[in-house]
Order: sequence, then C-alpha cells, then structure tokens
Amino acid sequence: MTDLPADDTAAPTRVTLAFEPAAKSVRVPTGVSVFDAASWNGIAIDSTCGGHGTCKKCGIRVLDGTIPVSRLDVRALGEERVRDGWRLACLATASGDLRIEVPPLTTRPKAATVGVGRQVILRPAVQKRYIELEEPTLTDQRTDVVRVLDAVDDLELRVEPRVLATLGRELRAAQWKVTVVVVDEDLIGIEAGDTTSTAHGIAIDLGTTTVVATLMDITTGTPVAVRSMLNKQQPFGADVISRISATMLDPEALPRLQSLAHETLAELAAEVCEEGGVDPAVVYEVTLAGNATMVQLVLGIDPEPLGVAPFIMASASYCGLRATDLGLHLHPSARAAVLPALGAYVGGDIIAGALASGMDRDKRLRLFIDVGTNCEIVVGDGERIMATAAPAGPAFEAASIRNGMRAAPGAIETVVITDDGIECGVIGEVAPVGLCGSGLVDAVAELVRVGLIDASGRFLTPELIVDARPDLAARFTEVDGERRFELATASESGGDPVVLTQRDVRELQFAKAAISTGWRLLLEEFGAKESDVQQVLLAGSFGTYLSARSAIRIGLVPALPVLRIVSAGNVAGEGAKMVLLSLPERHGANALLEEIEYMELSDRTDFNDRFVDELAFPPS
Amino acid sequence: MTDLPADDTAAPTRVTLAFEPAAKSVRVPTGVSVFDAASWNGIAIDSTCGGHGTCKKCGIRVLDGTIPVSRLDVRALGEERVRDGWRLACLATASGDLRIEVPPLTTRPKAATVGVGRQVILRPAVQKRYIELEEPTLTDQRTDVVRVLDAVDDLELRVEPRVLATLGRELRAAQWKVTVVVVDEDLIGIEAGDTTSTAHGIAIDLGTTTVVATLMDITTGTPVAVRSMLNKQQPFGADVISRISATMLDPEALPRLQSLAHETLAELAAEVCEEGGVDPAVVYEVTLAGNATMVQLVLGIDPEPLGVAPFIMASASYCGLRATDLGLHLHPSARAAVLPALGAYVGGDIIAGALASGMDRDKRLRLFIDVGTNCEIVVGDGERIMATAAPAGPAFEAASIRNGMRAAPGAIETVVITDDGIECGVIGEVAPVGLCGSGLVDAVAELVRVGLIDASGRFLTPELIVDARPDLAARFTEVDGERRFELATASESGGDPVVLTQRDVRELQFAKAAISTGWRLLLEEFGAKESDVQQVLLAGSFGTYLSARSAIRIGLVPALPVLRIVSAGNVAGEGAKMVLLSLPERHGANALLEEIEYMELSDRTDFNDRFVDELAFPPS
Repeated sequence: MTDLPADDTAAPTRVTLAFEPAAKSVRVPTGVSVFDAASWNGIAIDSTCGGHGTCKKCGIRVLDGTIPVSRLDVRALGEERVRDGWRLACLATASGDLRIEVPPLTTRPKAATVGVGRQVILRPAVQKRYIELEEPTLTDQRTDVVRVLDAVDDLELRVEPRVLATLGRELRAAQWKVTVVVVDEDLIGIEAGDTTSTAHGIAIDLGTTTVVATLMDITTGTPVAVRSMLNKQQPFGADVISRISATMLDPEALPRLQSLAHETLAELAAEVCEEGGVDPAVVYEVTLAGNATMVQLVLGIDPEPLGVAPFIMASASYCGLRATDLGLHLHPSARAAVLPALGAYVGGDIIAGALASGMDRDKRLRLFIDVGTNCEIVVGDGERIMATAAPAGPAFEAASIRNGMRAAPGAIETVVITDDGIECGVIGEVAPVGLCGSGLVDAVAELVRVGLIDASGRFLTPELIVDARPDLAARFTEVDGERRFELATASESGGDPVVLTQRDVRELQFAKAAISTGWRLLLEEFGAKESDVQQVLLAGSFGTYLSARSAIRIGLVPALPVLRIVSAGNVAGEGAKMVLLSLPERHGANALLEEIEYMELSDRTDFNDRFVDELAFPPS
Repeated sequence: MTDLPADDTAAPTRVTLAFEPAAKSVRVPTGVSVFDAASWNGIAIDSTCGGHGTCKKCGIRVLDGTIPVSRLDVRALGEERVRDGWRLACLATASGDLRIEVPPLTTRPKAATVGVGRQVILRPAVQKRYIELEEPTLTDQRTDVVRVLDAVDDLELRVEPRVLATLGRELRAAQWKVTVVVVDEDLIGIEAGDTTSTAHGIAIDLGTTTVVATLMDITTGTPVAVRSMLNKQQPFGADVISRISATMLDPEALPRLQSLAHETLAELAAEVCEEGGVDPAVVYEVTLAGNATMVQLVLGIDPEPLGVAPFIMASASYCGLRATDLGLHLHPSARAAVLPALGAYVGGDIIAGALASGMDRDKRLRLFIDVGTNCEIVVGDGERIMATAAPAGPAFEAASIRNGMRAAPGAIETVVITDDGIECGVIGEVAPVGLCGSGLVDAVAELVRVGLIDASGRFLTPELIVDARPDLAARFTEVDGERRFELATASESGGDPVVLTQRDVRELQFAKAAISTGWRLLLEEFGAKESDVQQVLLAGSFGTYLSARSAIRIGLVPALPVLRIVSAGNVAGEGAKMVLLSLPERHGANALLEEIEYMELSDRTDFNDRFVDELAFPPS
C-alpha cells in the first residue's frame, strides 16, 4: 500500500487512470497505487515482490500526466527509463489524471501481487499435468483411470464418474497424450495434448448490493477481465435483513433469491469470459467471498437463523462445492471454494478482506473498517486479531437519504466548501441528480467543518447562517417543516435541487455512532487507545470511496493524521483472488477463523450508552 | 452350505418351499438350505452363527412335508420341539415340497447370515445416532452444523450443502432432538426425534439378463422384500458384447442403455419398497454387483474399451456414488456402493460371488464357476486365489438354441430318461413350449448317458437308435437336413414339438469346452489336479439351476462325487447384501482385488488346442 500525497490540506478527490494498450479507464481515490488500480480493474502488471520495489517487474510508463519519481524508481529502472516516464507501478500514485502504458507480461511468474500489497505464491488448487502414456496391452491391463493416476502418482486423486464416462474415448482419441486437470484432490478432466499453459478461474465478490467477478489467468496470477453488476436480489430489499425477512414471510422467496444470485453470477461469468476471450470450459475453479447471508442464499440455505438472535450460521465453511452449486456452467466439473465466515455478521467477505489486507501479519496496530449497513471492524497487530460487527443502519443505502442514490453517473461523490462557495464532484461529469455515500459524508463533514452544522448535528439557525456564510444562506431552505441544504440548486442541477436534509444528517449520525462505538469498544477489548492506531483501512463499496479527511472530521474513524486512513479497495474480491491463486492463502483464510476473536456487540450492556455518547460530531 | 441328500442316484429335481405367515412360495434346487432359500427370497430368519447350528436362532417349523432331523437339531432345539416339527433352518434341506412356519424375529441381532453360510457382523456404512442438543445462545454461537457434529464427535463427518439447506429449520422444528443419518463419512440428513430403529438399504444384482433387488432392514440384517426383473437393456442384445457393439455403432445407444438400466433399477426399487411397506426416503444406501459392462453402462461410462482387446475397464472401483447416479430416488442423499471389478470379464458380480461364497477364506480347494455367455471361474484354497474368464458363447442364451427360452413358465428345466421313456420337468406346470439352460444341459447329459449321443456329440444314426431305444426312436426326426430330438412331441406340447437339434448340441459343446478348458488351465496354473477339488460352486442365473449330475456328465465341471457340486444361489446378490450390511466385508471385497491373481485366457497360445480337446463328452 502506498502513502497518500503529503499535502494534508488538499481537497479530497478522485483521479482517472487510462491504461494503454487496453484502452481502459478507471476512476480511483487519490492515493491508490497504479498497480492496485490496474489489478482491481483486470489489467495485468508483472509483480512478485509484494510492492516493495524489489522485483523490478512492475514498470509502467506515463504517457500523459505526472507521477512523482519514487525513492526506488531510479535504482530499479535506471535514470534513462525514469526520464522516459517509466515508474514502478507499485509505488506510483497519481495526484491528477494519467494515461499509462502497461507493457505486456514477459515472464511466467511464480508469485503475484494482490490485495493490499500482498505477495502471493502461485500455488492454486488447480493444477495441470501433461502426460504421455503407454498404450494398454494384454499384459498391461491396468484400467484407464489407473493408467492415468499412475502417471501422476505424487498426487492422491479422486475421479468422479462423469470424468470416467468419457475417459476411455478421450485417451484413445488423444493417442494417450493428454493433460490432466486437477482441482485439489479431484481429477476433474483430461484434455487432448499439452494444454498446461491455459488455466483460468473466476474470483467473485458477492456483495449484497454489488457483485464483482474477476476472470484470472491462474498460470500467471494475472487478471484477464473484471465486471461488476448489481445483485439481482435487490428487489427483495437493499440489506441482508430485508432479504432474510422475505424468506421468513414467503416459502417461495428462498428459491427465488437463490436463482437470482445464480443469474447474477452466471451473467457476470459470461461477461468476463466474453471480454477475456476465454472459453468457459477452461475455467476450472471459482472462489467466492460474501457475507454469511449472501453465501447461504446463493447455496439455497435457509437464512432465518442468521436474522434473529442469537444469529446462528448453518455452517462456517463449505466443502466439496461445485461451480454449478453457484449456478455457474463453466468446466463441467469446475469446483467452487467459498471463503469461510466467522459469524453471522462477520462473513467470508470480511475474512477475505482481513486476508487481503494482511490483518493477521502486519506488525502495525491496524484497524479495518468495512463500512456498510452492517459495519464489520477488525483490529490486529500481528500478534492478536479481533473482530466485531456494528449495526450501522441504512445511512449508506440510497433509500434512507432524501436524494440518496448509488455511486452512478449524476451522483455527487465529493463536496468541498471553500471561501468561494461549494464545489461538488459529480460522477460522469453530468448534471447532479443525487448524492452517494461518499458525497453524503463529505457534505456533512464540510458543513461541520465550516460551522454550519453544530456538534450535535443541527443546522445552525437561519439567522446564524446568514451571519456566518451569507453566500450560502440561500441554499438553506425549509420544506414541509424540514430544513435542508441545497448541494445543487435547481439551476445547477437543471431540475430539482439536490439536497441534504436535517434527517439525512441524523441518519449519518446514527451510522457513524454505531461504527465508532464499535471500534472504540473493540480497541478497549484489545487493550489499545485510539491514538495507538497506526493505520485505518477503509473497505467495502462505501468505505473504499470515502474521503479520509471527511471520515475523520465526522468521527467515523479515529482522529489520526489523514495519511494513516487509507482506502483498501475491494478487499473481499482481492481475498477471493488470493485463495484462487494460492492454497497457502486458502489455508490462511481458514486459519483466520481460529485466530480472530469475535466480540458480540448485541449482548453488551454498555453499547447503548456508548452509542448515545458517540452521536455528536467531534469538536473541531 | 448344506450337503445334497446322500442318494447319489436320485433324479435331478427342484422343490417348492412355501413360507408362512409370509404366504410366499419359492422354487429352489434340491439341496439348498431352508435358511438360504428364505434369505434369497426376502424372508427374514434370525441367525448369527453362519449356519453352524450354534446360535440356535434359526429355528423354523415344518407344517407340511418332511425335513430329516439334522445332527444338531435336538441339541439346539430340544427333543419336544423337534418332535413338533422344529428344525434349524441353516441345516434343513428338503427332498420334497415343504410348507414352513417362520417365527417373527425376536432379537436385534449383531450379525446376520448371508451368502454361502457367511456370518456377517452388522456394521453397515449407514449409521444413525439420536442426539439432544443445547439451544444456541449469544454466548454459544456455534454454527448449526458444528453443534450437530460436536454431538457425534467420535465421527469425522462431511456435510453437503443440500443437508445444510434445511438443517437450521429442521433442528429448530424438532426442538434440537434429532437423529443424524450417516453413510460412511457423510452426514446425509437429520430426522426429527429418535428414528434409530428404522434404516434400510437395497442390495442389487445387476445382471445382463436378470436384475434382482433386495430391500434390507439394515438394523437387523434381514431381508424385507425381493424382486427381480428382466434387464430393460435386453432389446440391445442378450449379452454384453452386443450391448457394447450398440454403443460403438450409435452414439445415442449409450445414454439410452444407461437410462434403461436406470428405469430397471427404479422400478425394482419402487416394487420392493411397496412390497415391504417402506418409505423410499428411509433407504439410505444402495449396493450393486454387476459385471464390468453393466456397471459402466449404468454409470454412463463408454464401454467400448471393454469390448475390444486388450479389454480395458475405465475403473475398477467407483467412489462417491449417489443412488441418483443409478437412477434411484430414495433418500435425497442416499449413497451407492458398487462392488469393484478385477477385470473387464471378471466383474463386481464375481467379486461379490467370491466374497459371498468365502472363496478367500475357506481352507478347502474350491472351484467357483459362474456359468453364462462369459463364464467366470475362481479357484481358491484359503491361501491363494486365482480367477479367469472363459468365452462360453451363447449356448445358455435362449436365442442360439432352436427352442431356447428363459427359465419362465413353459420352459423344460429338467430332463430324465428312464427305461420307461423321457420325463421333462416344466416350469409352472403348464404344457412345454421351450427349453431353458438347465433343461438343455439335462437333455444332452441324459442322451449321452443312455448312449444316444456319442462322445463326439453326434446323434447316433437312426439305425443304431432303433436298435438301442426303439421306444424313443420316433422322437428323432430330421427337418431341413438337420437331425433333432423331440423332448416334447406335438401332442405332448399341444402345439409345435419342443426339440433339441444337432446344432444345439454343438452349441453346448462349445460352451462346455470353453468352460472346462478355463478351469483346467486355471487348476494347472494353481498347481492342482481336477481330483483335488473338494467343492464346486455353481453360480449365476444359469449355474444355480444346473443339475450337478448333468454338469458332471457332460464334463462342464470336474468329475467329482455329485455331492461336491453345489448350487451357490445368486451369490452376486448375496455379496451385494454383505457389503450393504458390513463395512468389514466391503473392505474384504476391495482386498479381493489385490488377492486374486488374474489369468488372461485370450493371450494363451495353448487355449485353442486345449479347447478342441475338450469338445468331446467324457467317457461314461
């Protein structure tokens, strides 16, 4: 993970990175490394060292824009190349928009860099072996399957009837020269000739709101294509509780939710295979990270016990899954691995995130916060690791905010109030039509910062506003007895104004109070103070795009120097990639279940008092 | 196994045993014990000692007919009961028709007697455990599956997603008092309350011609119902080679053959469940014995390599099978176990038969002969065990014999020639319409015995016949240049005469020559002489019903005292029962694959010479 630019007073912002020759543009928070931005978006850059500038493989070239020369660029790349615009992608961050050339992969790597600077040894569950067999004779009547297994006898393999059904014909058609395809301890197929250079998997982040699939080349550890899509279960409600409730009210809801999840995954898989030009039949494994509810729903497992105290999962982990159990039709015997879950509200997505951000091994005291309706918090220092879940409520869901919307074109995603007025960053450079989660946090943080919202969360009285900021006073209006602030006036939006209401502020206060109560209690249990925290990782589809400064301002995260608050990206998806590429990491994910101490908040008698204390915004 | 009656000159015959209160009649060869006859036909009699008269549990009562008092009856049952008609079923054999009372089972046995006097410890793969669980709380948030597994923690169990799907709801509906159903290492389901006294399995003998299913109560080791049916694959040919050929000519044939096998098994399973009054949902496991071709076809595995040299199986054994893989819809996660095969022509049916007849442990030198189109032969003496397969050809198939038919009503099954003429036993006591396998062997054996067929297999000339047996001369006719013997004249049959043709005799000669060449070569390899053999077990749907005397007469079996030639019954089905009831026996079946030395006949250069030598009938 790279540091944010040192300019602590710079406005929170996003940059656009255009990658060549892929002709792909992505928009990421300032401070994300070029390597991560590329990797998260399915663009492969060589790397084996974990982003420490030592493998020298991740060189990229700046075509337009500026990347400061990092401390290792000259040593790794040489002066001349640095002059020509070459930089190490793992250390490169942008303060402005960039156009970047990514050279083709040159080597077959033995490791890949994924997650938050995690170097992962390429040792996937999927293995291929090319073998040339002796033909059977009357004096060598070994069965077809034994003949194959004898040739790979360092592995103890099982073979299912489906493979046996065509094994004889395939071996003979291929004249006994075949590649065996193995996942874990299962021989899932044979292919004519030597196909060892082709093997793919799909890593899935199955979110309640958004689902992301990354097609990976598992021979090189590099992403081939990535696509995201709204979870088709959305009509059953925005959060997990509404989906669980649906299954309790209607016996048809569970099979329907399962098939909607299957449809979502199947469409995404088809899209990434199409985009990557990869035959689905050479996708041998799928890994999936999701919260406990999403996982139970996609597997058709009754989620009711997750939704009512004492919040019980059917199982923490699932063995022997097939891709077809997820509704995916890839290689006919493709396997599926689901990240294990710690509890009903600290699911496989969080285990994936903790894995991808190295929460179990980094020696610094770090706090991992996945911001959402259910907020998961992990603290670790390389010695000990603890987790909890805080019920943040719906503030980050569009539905509970007057002009709330998802982070889609037209959404105000950044808000800055300067002496000259208000500046809103809008996704897609179109007229603003609503407000997404990061925009909400920015708007409230800025109004608090300039004193137009007081510490208790109230808008100042109109009189005080006119005194303090006459230039903004006209934006404060009152409709149906509720006060509101026009982030975009009717003339700015070209339609209805985009407003922040007093009630919106309250919703955000509830969310931030729940979250900060969560990490405060967790730090206390851990025996650490707020100021001891050396890094806060903001994760999840909301967390990743929050402005660190605004998060500090409203007290959502510890009051630390802004550089210590970093965006972790889609760590759930990164964790899914890691376990796809590396069995040691898969074992690590399982080990996390043993290592993480879980603190249940719902039976803490002090939670409500602490929550009320946390409703106020921190003093400036 | 009991001995045949001592009267060595008695005509070969069958007896009918009627069992009460089951009101079930069966027809068996003389010499089969009452216990075996009952067991083979789905009637449960207590027994735990393996038929040695020591457990004293298998008492039955003769209602009509006579069973001689055996050496142990008085000791086991007491004089008074013996006077009242009680006998030990394991030692009881009938020389005439019987009506027998079978008392209800009194104890829950720990062992069962199946196969050829094999005592089997009841330790099935299926286990049930009744457990009462603590309800979860906020301080005990173990997952549902861990809560269950912790209660049976002496077992290392896997749980599939299907079980997890409803586990939570079922546990709560049953108020945490449930019975877990385990097969091998898989927890396949839970049931509300204590259901440990109910558990069933189905043992299947999947023959090329006939398929037999026995529904077993695996808590007691006793049969509940048995049904047999023609294999619905019959339209694709009577023998394995014609079915393999079909798959080579038409790509649609394999799926069709598979679904016909599935239909056969599904119908049989439905019938035995119906007859036994057992809900298919409490049938947890199916075991199946079949030859390699039948097994590959039912699993949808391309059989072509079985049909052409060097005769290669896809696999010797199959792991992880479900009942659904066999087309059976029983308990939704019911498992299936298929007896392993030694080779393409010594299949799981023979392994089952060798297991059921104790070929690996009996200290006597014994020969096991499964008579059929492909004849499998096993020799063992408790130290060493060898097997071979002899291509007997189609003599035992109805199609290749002029008036051949299956052993169904109207078939001549026994033939005796006396000084007074010819006596044919006809199945079903109807007018004769054809000749089944045992009738063919009897007819030829008797004609050889009385000298109307010479050692070379030729009918005597008409002149010599008139001299020898003027009473039978009119039965020898000639049609279209082929000589034939009328077993039943037109007036006796009430239609066309039922004949044995010269060509039929030749067909049988080919078959018997192949078989006797097989066991002669096998005995030579084994280092034994024909006269060393202490027992010959005749198995298979043909072998079981062959007359020992006739088999000796034509040289099909070694020239031994007739008492040493015994009918082994449906040993394939018995082996399937054994592995259903007992994991140690299942391991024994797998061990047989290692223990049996296989002798391939098709690459023996001396086979053809020996075969020609064996065509002649033995001198009288």
